[in-house]
Parts: sequence; C-alpha cells; structure tokens
Amino acid sequence: MFIVQKYGGSSLQTAEDIKKVAGRIAELYHKKTNLIVVVSAMGNTTNELTDLAKKISPSPSQRELDMLLTTGERISMALLSMALIDLDVPAISFTGSQAGVMTNDSFNNAQILDIKPIRVEEALKQNKVVVLAGFQGVSPKTKEITTLGRGGSDTTAIAMAAHFKASRCEILKDVDGIATADPKVNKNAKVISEIAYNHLTDMTFWGARFLHHRAAELAQHLNVPVFIGPSHKTGIGTIIKGESLMYENQKILSVNSHAFVREVSISADELHEAIDKVQATLTKKQLPMLQILHSERKERQWKLLLTGAKEHITPINGIFNETNELSTVTTTCLGLVASSKAAELAKKLKSNGIETKNIIYAPLSITFVLDQRDREKAIHTLSMQHAND
Amino acid sequence: MFIVQKYGGSSLQTAEDIKKVAGRIAELYHKKTNLIVVVSAMGNTTNELTDLAKKISPSPSQRELDMLLTTGERISMALLSMALIDLDVPAISFTGSQAGVMTNDSFNNAQILDIKPIRVEEALKQNKVVVLAGFQGVSPKTKEITTLGRGGSDTTAIAMAAHFKASRCEILKDVDGIATADPKVNKNAKVISEIAYNHLTDMTFWGARFLHHRAAELAQHLNVPVFIGPSHKTGIGTIIKGESLMYENQKILSVNSHAFVREVSISADELHEAIDKVQATLTKKQLPMLQILHSERKERQWKLLLTGAKEHITPINGIFNETNELSTVTTTCLGLVASSKAAELAKKLKSNGIETKNIIYAPLSITFVLDQRDREKAIHTLSMQHAND
Repeated sequence: MFIVQKYGGSSLQTAEDIKKVAGRIAELYHKKTNLIVVVSAMGNTTNELTDLAKKISPSPSQRELDMLLTTGERISMALLSMALIDLDVPAISFTGSQAGVMTNDSFNNAQILDIKPIRVEEALKQNKVVVLAGFQGVSPKTKEITTLGRGGSDTTAIAMAAHFKASRCEILKDVDGIATADPKVNKNAKVISEIAYNHLTDMTFWGARFLHHRAAELAQHLNVPVFIGPSHKTGIGTIIKGESLMYENQKILSVNSHAFVREVSISADELHEAIDKVQATLTKKQLPMLQILHSERKERQWKLLLTGAKEHITPINGIFNETNELSTVTTTCLGLVASSKAAELAKKLKSNGIETKNIIYAPLSITFVLDQRDREKAIHTLSMQHAND
Repeated sequence: MFIVQKYGGSSLQTAEDIKKVAGRIAELYHKKTNLIVVVSAMGNTTNELTDLAKKISPSPSQRELDMLLTTGERISMALLSMALIDLDVPAISFTGSQAGVMTNDSFNNAQILDIKPIRVEEALKQNKVVVLAGFQGVSPKTKEITTLGRGGSDTTAIAMAAHFKASRCEILKDVDGIATADPKVNKNAKVISEIAYNHLTDMTFWGARFLHHRAAELAQHLNVPVFIGPSHKTGIGTIIKGESLMYENQKILSVNSHAFVREVSISADELHEAIDKVQATLTKKQLPMLQILHSERKERQWKLLLTGAKEHITPINGIFNETNELSTVTTTCLGLVASSKAAELAKKLKSNGIETKNIIYAPLSITFVLDQRDREKAIHTLSMQHAND
C-alpha cells in the first residue's frame, strides 16, 4: 500500500507533537506501507514570519516573502525526519524545489504546473519514508522559490498522491473529519464517514475549512481518494471518493459558512469591468483578490458578494461603499435540491428570528445570506434541521 | 569600489536591528559602492534550532540538522533584502546553494571546494545589492545542503571577497575591532587600527573570538584585506592586511585566551594513535573533534592539551583521565619573540599570585597554561604589561 499523508501545523506545534506524529508514521512503515508525508509549518510559524516581515516593511517584496515563508515547512520537515530516523525509520526530507514541484513564476500564490520528483522516486525505491515541505515549489523558468498560497500544503499532498497514484491521500489535522456542522457551533455535529467529490467541493466553496477549495477541486479533477481525519488518533474520519448519485434527495448533509462577507457596489456597465475594478483596488491596497460568491446588476451598478479571511475583509471597510458585516450559511444536500426546500428552510430561519437577506441556489446546496450576528444561530437552526430530517 | 560585508547574528537580533543595518548598506549603495552582504542567523536562532533538534533526538541526523539550521540564515537574508527594497535599494537574496557555494559532502562541517556564483554575478551586473546566507553550501556530488560549521558565515564572506576580488571584506559585529585584550576583562583595552595576517592567525589560533581561525587562515591564504569593526557605528575598527616585518620587537600586541582547556592522558606509542583514540572517543559521544594546542610524551602515554567550546569540553569530564579546568592566555607580540620574554612575563604572573603550569612557545607569541580560575587575572596582568611597554 502506498499512501500520502499531510499533517497540518496545528498537529505539529511542539517537539512532542512531532514525535507523536513520527510514532504514527513508524507504525505504518512497519506494516509495510510506503509513505510520502507532506508537512505544514509548525503551529503558528507562518503567521509569525509574516508578522516579522510586516515589521520590516508594510509591503514586503513578494520574492523575499516566499524565501522567508518557505523556512517554516523546512523546519518541520527536518524535525519530523530526525524524529523518524531516531525511531529507526529510514526517512529523508525534501524541499518543494528538491522534490521537483514545478510552479509558474507567480510569488505568494503560485500554481503547480508539473511534478518531476526524481529524488523522491529514488528515495522511495530505497524504501525510505519521504518527508516533504508542503506549500512550496520552484519556477523552472526563473529558478525562483515560490509558495502556493493558502491551503498550499493540501495542494502539494493531493498533487503528489495523484502523481504517484497513491491509494489514498490522508489530510490529518485537528478535526475528527468532515462534520454535519462546525462542532464548535453545534456540539451535536457528527462526523460523516463517506462523501462524494462534488459534495466536498460544494462544501469547500461555501466555506468549509477542513480542506482548501483549490485542493478539493484538484482531488476531484485528478480522482485522488482523500481521507480527512485527526492527526493524533485513528478510527474516525471521512473518506471522499466517487460522485454522488444525483437523486432528488434533499437531506442536509452538512452546514458550512463564510463568516466574513460583504456586498460591494461598483459602478460599471460590464461585470468584467466591475471585477477588474475590485481587483485593481485590492492590489493597490496590497490585499489579495477576494472570493466572489454572487453578482447582480442594479441599474448602472454591479453588486458583488465577496468573502475572504478576516484580515483581508476587514481592511476593505469604507473602500467600496460596502454593506455591513454579512455571513453566508450553506446547506449542502445529499442529492439535487428543489427550490421548495429553500423556502422551507428560510421559513424555519424566520421562525427563529433570523432574516434571510438573499438566497443563492446551486445544484447541491442552498446558501442563505444573512447578518453576521445571526450566523451561529443559523448554523445551529439548519444543522438541527439536518438531525430532524 | 566593491566590498563584501558580513553581519553577525548579534547585529541582527530584531527587526529594528535589521532596518538599521539596511540603512547603513543603503548609504554605501548611494555612494556607488557595489556590495555583497553575507548574513548570519538572527541573534540566538542557530542555538534555538539546535535545542529544538535535541528535543527531537539526542543525536539528530546530520543531514536533517543541516536542513534545519540553514533556515536561520535564510530568514535573516530575506528580511534584510525586504528592508533594503523598502529603502528603494534593489536587493536580492540567495541561499548558499543559489549562490553556487560548492562544498564537500560532509554535513555540519563542510569545506568550500569552489564558488560558481552565476546568479550573484548576474545580479551584480544589474547593479543589485546581493544578500547571501552565510554558513551554508551545497555538495555538487550529492546535491545535499551542507553547513560550514562554526564561523561558517565568516568563511563564506572571505571566500566571496576572494572570488570577486573585493577591495575589502568587512566583518561587522558587536565589537569595536581587534583589541589589545578582551574589553570585558580589561576595561582599558584599546582597538588596534591595523595588524598583519600572521598576527591575526596567531590571535585566532590562541582563542581570539572576533573571527573564526579558519576564516582568518583563508583570508591570509587568499590575501583578502579584512576589516573588523562594529555593525552599528563607523569610524572605528581594525584593518588586517600584509605581513608584519619580523623584527625582534617583543611589544605585546594583543592578549587572547582559550577559557576551556584540558590536558588529557592517552596510552599510545605513537602520537597519531593517541589523536585517533581521542577522535574515536569523541565521535562515539557525538562530540566534534577538539582543537589540539600542545602534545607531549610521558613514558608510554601522550599528554594532549585540548580546547573547544564550553559545551564540547564539559562533556569530556571523566572520559580521558583529564586534568581539572585549565585555560591558556596568549600574548601575541609585534615581532619575533625571544625566550627571555617568556621568563619575564612568567615572573610578572608569579608576582601576581598566578602559577604558570607550562609555557608554549611560538614565533609571534607566548602562551601560558594556567588554572582557569586565574584566567581573568592573567589577562589583566599581561595586558597591563602591554600598556607599560
């Protein structure tokens, strides 16, 4: 058996954590499993390095920022290899560049173009456990080190699993798996044991945090079986594979949410002009492009519904004549969704005192746009609904 | 003018320090100086990373340790480049591998075999300030990342200065220059404005800490003019160049010391057997080879006088039937030394209550072996002697 495992930063916060992870890998190794292990930076390292860069310059050179940030994964990969070797497991670590992760030349948000993992192949032939720095690559054109942006380590793991035709790509982190709702909001949320790719990508598009949307799309596109589960225990988790059967089964599978959403009004005749304007304004403010959830024309204006991380949404206050704080809460359903389901759920929200500002319809899901202050209550209401189905 | 500057870790402890260093470099850049800047890891980073590795494994894999430690210089080079770019100075950082620092394949203590700095040359042609990670290279044979061992960043700087025939290699740190004695021990110690290579190598061999002995030897061998001075001010420092005239001038130039010294007794017929025994025992205990200061046969035993860093000397307690804590204190003189000078100084020490256990004679210096507890007093006595000359 050949599997790719990816350990997130929250599972690698301390030397003790790293030794625990090494113990788990050693067990698999002794059961004759061939392994590539992709690691993120330890704990909060990436944010700490970013803060350090911000102390040096309000808009640090993007090339140098990638040089800086890539040290995070390099530290964790070296430490995990040491821990494995200490357990008599032959291990070797490689950076993105050493592992042949070829990207385009766009710093901070590079895309993987190709994988030429010559040294990884050699090491696997020698029966070694290969430990890889996630999140990073090298541009063969410029020879520059690049990073893959948010969720980059997930993307590295999926791409490696696809390249080596691994039986499974395991994304291991501080959650028990994909749940019916955020367990922090609804204590009764349950882990779903198996879902289909199209459910996964619907959830990640609408704000699920257990896997980056980009990695989810890549997994679906490359048909990589994915397992999402906890780093420090076994026997629980979610398998993602195959397509769901598209019956009109409107049972709610999982409730997900974008916490930080704004509707902005842009004067423009054409939608692409409006989007270009947003992009240009954000670039000038050194902010990354936000995710567009919805667009709508109102006379000579375009209204765009935007989301992103809190630190990228908050700075737009007052720039775009935008609304107050909104959120989206999305129910991803088992099968195709009929519009009547949307009305039924909106009524349920209303009876709990939650005003639905708008509804966004998609084949597998219904998304409610509402005030941010109603978000947790809405997640609760809709995921209780799931339990009652 | 083309100069190579090297900034030590104690000059790069915080973001503020790095911005200060960038300001100094920017000034030189605007005066049309071409610059390669070699950096060490920030502050105590290398020790912190080593401690982290020790938490993972008592004897971490040497390959992975080099992977880990090289992140230290990578962080400081990226931050310094950012700071320069923020001051509108075109700067670009390179790792040892990117800068073409080719070493042998010995981890943790690699030696530079060749320098093929293609990317550095290109960047200099574009009038950029090149910021280099010191202390690191790559083995062209194994493609593995290596580190150069103690004093490695100094060695990188000297080697680069030699390759590019720089007018000067400036080693900038938290001292004002080469002084007549350690200013922490003798407050009246003065900075010497110019000395010759052979004085420099004598001092570094006998324990001076302002430059690693290996880098001093390389500077002499490659005839690189070296300047040693403070990072955060100008107008003071020491120039090292040329050979001294070998008159019998016994004036004391500088007093230096190895604080941690032991005499060990090894049963062996031949000296090389004794040294091999020491090396093998240290390797088994995962300790680096110590510096041999003196050797002497006593019947079927060899007595070796050994020194090294405190953390490498202390663990040998009880292994070699060694003496108690000794130190050496060395007076490097302006010209050739006559034996009568040794007697004169030993008498002076005696009159201050310091017992000389042995004297080691060299062309430019006299070294006193004494109890460690007498060390500071001896430095004081001998450097006062200098003032009275």
